[in-house]
Amino acid sequence: MDYRHLFSSDVPSFMRSPVREIFRKVDLSAICSFAGGYPAAVTFPVEDLRRLPGLVLDKYGTKALQYGATQGVPELREAIAARYGVPVSRVQITTSSQQGIDVCTRILCDPGDIILTTEPTYLGALQSFKAYRADVRPIKSIVMDREGIVPETVVSDDPSQSRLTPSSGPSLLCGRGWPQVSGTTPSRSDSKPVKFIYVIPDFNNPSGETMTLEERMEIVKLARELDVVIVEDSPYRELRYSGEEVPTIYSLAPERTLHLGSFSKIFAPGFRLGWIIGPEELLEQIYICKQALDLCPPVFDQYMATEFLTSGALDANLVKTKAEYRRRRDLMVSLLEKYMPAGVKWTYPEGGLFLFLTLPEGIDTIEMYDEALSRGVAYVAGSFFFLDGSHRNTMRLNFSFIAEEKMEPGLKLLGEIVRGVICK
Amino acid sequence: MDYRHLFSSDVPSFMRSPVREIFRKVDLSAICSFAGGYPAAVTFPVEDLRRLPGLVLDKYGTKALQYGATQGVPELREAIAARYGVPVSRVQITTSSQQGIDVCTRILCDPGDIILTTEPTYLGALQSFKAYRADVRPIKSIVMDREGIVPETVVSDDPSQSRLTPSSGPSLLCGRGWPQVSGTTPSRSDSKPVKFIYVIPDFNNPSGETMTLEERMEIVKLARELDVVIVEDSPYRELRYSGEEVPTIYSLAPERTLHLGSFSKIFAPGFRLGWIIGPEELLEQIYICKQALDLCPPVFDQYMATEFLTSGALDANLVKTKAEYRRRRDLMVSLLEKYMPAGVKWTYPEGGLFLFLTLPEGIDTIEMYDEALSRGVAYVAGSFFFLDGSHRNTMRLNFSFIAEEKMEPGLKLLGEIVRGVICK
Repeated sequence: MDYRHLFSSDVPSFMRSPVREIFRKVDLSAICSFAGGYPAAVTFPVEDLRRLPGLVLDKYGTKALQYGATQGVPELREAIAARYGVPVSRVQITTSSQQGIDVCTRILCDPGDIILTTEPTYLGALQSFKAYRADVRPIKSIVMDREGIVPETVVSDDPSQSRLTPSSGPSLLCGRGWPQVSGTTPSRSDSKPVKFIYVIPDFNNPSGETMTLEERMEIVKLARELDVVIVEDSPYRELRYSGEEVPTIYSLAPERTLHLGSFSKIFAPGFRLGWIIGPEELLEQIYICKQALDLCPPVFDQYMATEFLTSGALDANLVKTKAEYRRRRDLMVSLLEKYMPAGVKWTYPEGGLFLFLTLPEGIDTIEMYDEALSRGVAYVAGSFFFLDGSHRNTMRLNFSFIAEEKMEPGLKLLGEIVRGVICK
Repeated sequence: MDYRHLFSSDVPSFMRSPVREIFRKVDLSAICSFAGGYPAAVTFPVEDLRRLPGLVLDKYGTKALQYGATQGVPELREAIAARYGVPVSRVQITTSSQQGIDVCTRILCDPGDIILTTEPTYLGALQSFKAYRADVRPIKSIVMDREGIVPETVVSDDPSQSRLTPSSGPSLLCGRGWPQVSGTTPSRSDSKPVKFIYVIPDFNNPSGETMTLEERMEIVKLARELDVVIVEDSPYRELRYSGEEVPTIYSLAPERTLHLGSFSKIFAPGFRLGWIIGPEELLEQIYICKQALDLCPPVFDQYMATEFLTSGALDANLVKTKAEYRRRRDLMVSLLEKYMPAGVKWTYPEGGLFLFLTLPEGIDTIEMYDEALSRGVAYVAGSFFFLDGSHRNTMRLNFSFIAEEKMEPGLKLLGEIVRGVICK
């Protein structure tokens, strides 16, 4: 039977994750894989999890097994509200932070509506945005850091394509040329409004970078000028290994920011729990929408997360998790310094799970990928994280998931492969 | 701040569940509530759940806490495939059966596209359909059973509004006048195609009724004539207390049926797990869509469900669950016979959680609701389950959730209230 006449107009815009497709084809456990973005299994609080289910059943009884409130169970909402200093009425629990991205897009975007994003950006967000046929456009960002990528000059190919509603003028240019909206996407819907700005300000996936306070204020300024919402996707915020904490964008513009948090990196991703902190008027629409999406987040898991958080076990585990990842980050950086040829640069992440590599101009990490894979090392090509597929000389390396003993042979091999390509 | 200019065009169509709104306003535990559709807490396998988490950690290790496959973990897909005799490739695990409804609508419906449904129908499905701005139209069904509602004659107010793509002619009329499409909804989009037929063939929510094999074959015939998909929503199928099992619609038309199952009534709703069985070509689009929705269903919960199912604990618990609900159904029917005045009719459900009451013509169960609530008894007005808000003399009664000792005082009270309204 042919189903094509039955599919909705969204279907042709559904986008497979290149990362998940890599996982489908190759047994990454057999090689040195810096692809993927999984947390280290060693950070999972296994011992707590032997205790928590019984504790939840004792304390909450069958309530923990029943349907729950669409907004999330009150106990978890209160725990999140207390941890982040916001009113409970501003907290919605989500069935994963990915659902948070999806539902924000759902309530805000019609096909052709414009979403602005910094680049490189999270692939899972692009999947959601494209699945709603939004017109996603880049805000070019300076990529910084001591070993960082050279700051880019923002050039719009055709200035007439950069027009946004209501306006984006010279006032948006800051000294470092950022943020400025560049019209690199086709202008099929220039009359459509901008609906929100999407940013991953803390330890960006894939770049590992963190936005400065000044840059966050620029994002807020842009959002206020355009009169749009900011979706602040911050699943790694609790994972800082060095440097100073920067205020959330939510704290700078609570009236227009939807801040997305996640338990995946501070508890375990197998529980699919996240949260949205934002204005009640926006959460109200998300609440009604979520009734139709899945009625409520997983209830038993929410009570386990509540107990994990309120008992102090989360913070205790976080100390160990951060020590583990700090060591891995430092190891990766020292190994890159040891094995990468001259001309290769990388970001220095103050937290999170990723580091971003820039090879000399002209090298194509997609072309290089088959050789790397056949020789036993995997990464994700950086161009996947750019809307126009540019930056083909970049790659994302994950330092959280790979077995620690594979890090040196893997990076040594990668260094050799890069050196070979440079010498060609 | 005013957000109205930012909302998507779907937002005005979001529909609050009247049932969930009742829950919000009243503490139903303080009264005799036949509203809601929760399973009885006594059916939850609490003792198994003290054992399962540790067992899952021992057997699957940290894999149970990590991200999992978007299709669901292979072990659970295999267990579902084996239980229902279908290939694993035809099984997608969902984050609740509600997500199954939502994602089927997402991949099939554009705004204005037509969904046909039998009536009365599931409110959560209507929420999903309306949230995508589908044009939901009724297939009038005969409501049967020994104490049942009188069969309805199907009349379309304006036959020109009944035109469907490709056609709905006299061949669709069967002896009992069913199924026939009635154009009761505004015809703003008559040029739009029908995309699927939605049915709850087993122990319908809200009516409690089960479609005969003949009626299922009529649905298949209609779907084949229209060349559309059937969404067979069957969360109660495993809960049969009497009568003979009827083949699934999926078994009659596996090439065009998406069969939705749920763990909520056979394990615990707090786990938010369901499944879709259907053609690979449709599941492939659901798979890609689900990456953007929430990446994967809850992994730890999936492994608990796997062990619960494959160990035989599910079947053992199901025997107890069915005995419990059979007793409750029989009790409710005997109490209705005892307390309801002449002229009140009800369905006799062979399974599921609900029974549907029809009061004499002219009585309005929405108008009656405030009095009922103030006197200490709650139900859901039946007209909520009809697209045009008709059948205002009906109500849904749930027999699974109410404390058993409240059933007699509750139905006695309801009988008095109904008697009072009849005598007015």
